[in-house]
Amino acid sequence: MVVELISVGTELLLGNIVNTNAAWLAEKCAALGLSCYYQTVVGDNRDRLAATLRTGLERSDILILSGGLGPTQDDLTKETAAEVFGQPLGMDPHSLERIETFFAEKGLEMTENNKKQALVPQGAAVVDNDNGTAPGLILTKDGKRMILLPGPPNELKPMFEGSIAPFLTKLTGKEEGAVIYSKTVKICGQGESSVESRITDLEQLSNPTVAPYAKIGEVHLRVTARAADEKEARKMVKPVVKELKARFGSLVYTTEEDVTLEKSVVDLLLANNLTVSTIESCSGGLLAARLINIPGVSEVFKSGYISYSNKAKRKIAGVKKSTLAKYGAVSSQTAGEMARGAALLSKADVTLSITGIAGPEGGTAEKPVGLVYMGCYVCGTTRVKEFRFSGNRAKIRESAVSAALTMMRQCILEYYSEKTFGKKE
Amino acid sequence: MVVELISVGTELLLGNIVNTNAAWLAEKCAALGLSCYYQTVVGDNRDRLAATLRTGLERSDILILSGGLGPTQDDLTKETAAEVFGQPLGMDPHSLERIETFFAEKGLEMTENNKKQALVPQGAAVVDNDNGTAPGLILTKDGKRMILLPGPPNELKPMFEGSIAPFLTKLTGKEEGAVIYSKTVKICGQGESSVESRITDLEQLSNPTVAPYAKIGEVHLRVTARAADEKEARKMVKPVVKELKARFGSLVYTTEEDVTLEKSVVDLLLANNLTVSTIESCSGGLLAARLINIPGVSEVFKSGYISYSNKAKRKIAGVKKSTLAKYGAVSSQTAGEMARGAALLSKADVTLSITGIAGPEGGTAEKPVGLVYMGCYVCGTTRVKEFRFSGNRAKIRESAVSAALTMMRQCILEYYSEKTFGKKE
Repeated sequence: MVVELISVGTELLLGNIVNTNAAWLAEKCAALGLSCYYQTVVGDNRDRLAATLRTGLERSDILILSGGLGPTQDDLTKETAAEVFGQPLGMDPHSLERIETFFAEKGLEMTENNKKQALVPQGAAVVDNDNGTAPGLILTKDGKRMILLPGPPNELKPMFEGSIAPFLTKLTGKEEGAVIYSKTVKICGQGESSVESRITDLEQLSNPTVAPYAKIGEVHLRVTARAADEKEARKMVKPVVKELKARFGSLVYTTEEDVTLEKSVVDLLLANNLTVSTIESCSGGLLAARLINIPGVSEVFKSGYISYSNKAKRKIAGVKKSTLAKYGAVSSQTAGEMARGAALLSKADVTLSITGIAGPEGGTAEKPVGLVYMGCYVCGTTRVKEFRFSGNRAKIRESAVSAALTMMRQCILEYYSEKTFGKKE
Repeated sequence: MVVELISVGTELLLGNIVNTNAAWLAEKCAALGLSCYYQTVVGDNRDRLAATLRTGLERSDILILSGGLGPTQDDLTKETAAEVFGQPLGMDPHSLERIETFFAEKGLEMTENNKKQALVPQGAAVVDNDNGTAPGLILTKDGKRMILLPGPPNELKPMFEGSIAPFLTKLTGKEEGAVIYSKTVKICGQGESSVESRITDLEQLSNPTVAPYAKIGEVHLRVTARAADEKEARKMVKPVVKELKARFGSLVYTTEEDVTLEKSVVDLLLANNLTVSTIESCSGGLLAARLINIPGVSEVFKSGYISYSNKAKRKIAGVKKSTLAKYGAVSSQTAGEMARGAALLSKADVTLSITGIAGPEGGTAEKPVGLVYMGCYVCGTTRVKEFRFSGNRAKIRESAVSAALTMMRQCILEYYSEKTFGKKE
């Protein structure tokens, strides 16, 4: 069964708001096993909306519309859908009563145009709205359906979960539909083409499918299966995820949907009872900021330092004057001293230092823009690494922070794999 | 001239990611005076993408596509667009060289599938990508155009602003005998409805138009005129910008396109020969990171500290144990001591401290999630302010950083307006 999402609203076309409803509905529909091939955004315009509905009805079984059910003249989703299906509007006493109660309970006066919201196309099923005045509607004609939902997320989401999802489940169950189940294998420290060159065979699979998505410093491999029920779909996904984990080993930092790279690092610190401090130059606090975006980080995060100038590198981290003079601020030697200095100062078990040239100025032939050194101190041992990133200043800094999280993760894992005496006391 | 936005990617159809590119592009197109009636999302599927392109070309002059330009088998936007226009693909030596250089500079090996990214439809204009390997493309046929952009926002945005926006400006100017000229009045420290209530009369204007765009902690008012030539359009925009400056006074931090709030603060520091340090708790380095994203900040930025724990607040900034015990870490007293302590430690002329509850845990009835205190020290004087932000952890932290930049700006301006003996020696 094929659904199509149609979002109605000129504010979306002008870019005043981001279409989070579409992403939310898309995820819910995929979980219900519905296929979705198109999403469309169209403004509050009767002719263009009608054309969009007619096109959608030709290629999909169910159109899910959101927005345009309000009381104002602009709002004409219901009127247009009713016209396309040739089902005239009539007053629905049940909805009118609910709207009147809604206003009475809030102690507000109901205006004349709110009555418009109780008008319902002939034969449509009414879905009560517990969080607003516009009821949802399900219109049916010749086996095709249009589901009309209010635009505000706090009305749309509970209505979809409470009424529309059960309706769709029943509908697809009847028609022997299928369930889609996905799992994402998240890989850090590898480029997209390098990852892909190792999975060309798996990309040929048709069920489950394997699809790569590149992020800065990460590649996510999404494994998706379609089956009669979720249990079977999970069973199909499992061996592929296992195979990917075997191929990429410790480069896989998680297979959980809600775990980010920074969360995996914080979890690793928590699990090993390690504290952390950061000392940053070109990244200017971005590494600390990403770690601190994880709730609960307070148990592991000791201090963050931003030593942008040479003076600050000496003063905060105790980088030697001679090191800066001989090797420069952007060097493996300085990165190492920064990491050790921050550990000494903050008494953290793990520290990470970043020093580099983010540009656009400051690059030379020998030390070009994008050259970054990082030091990672783990319980007395310091490793240093050189990186070369490309892009503008913001891109270089973001790339550096992703690489820093990856390096921190790898150094901690290596520290424990090399030790024979187990975890920190 | 009518544009249509087409986003390509199965990950959008599955709801794995939110379509922020569409909102961003929509806003830019609106600002350029282009009409946009439809946005479509379609998956990585050749037939459906081709059908979407054909439909789009019937009803719009320019299709702006994003996504599907990567090196993998999934990526077929270019191939499909070339097929629809009947323009066969050929190797572009210039793009190939750029991709080779990209990999060489990173010290990475280029895989065979990256070569695919240098294939270009016959007659297409190539737009260099400074932040990735996929070049942008402009295809033209029978007066219709398809503009192909890479999907990653950090590649799409600079490419659009640097190359596509100027191209579209020239195109619309040429073909309608009219030029569109815009100037943006950027306001900090005011909410959207508060700003809008003061410009209801100006919002009625039809040429030039005044349109508000809300950002976190800022409101931008875009004044746009359409005229026969740029000189005339500028003349029309000027008095409206002047009027807005008069109404909002020092809340207007710039009218320059490329000046951000953080750049205006760095410029203010440079102009007054002031140095700056930051000390952050809940914002965890984001304030320093925004300042350090401005090239040339090294002349003014002394040190940044992230004192997330109480211990770090005491150790780094010398906040008194009794202050923390009596008033708590989130209090005006702690914020003030943090600002003064950072000034003492780093010897900066200006410091800003942030301490607050970003959530989701840690809030109480008395001190709810979103409560933030900031201290701003300017050459010996410290001011403290209380803020209440709403939203999730990330939103609260971003709001705090914007408010911190606004507060720093206001405190510096007030310091100089109250002084009679001029600038710092």
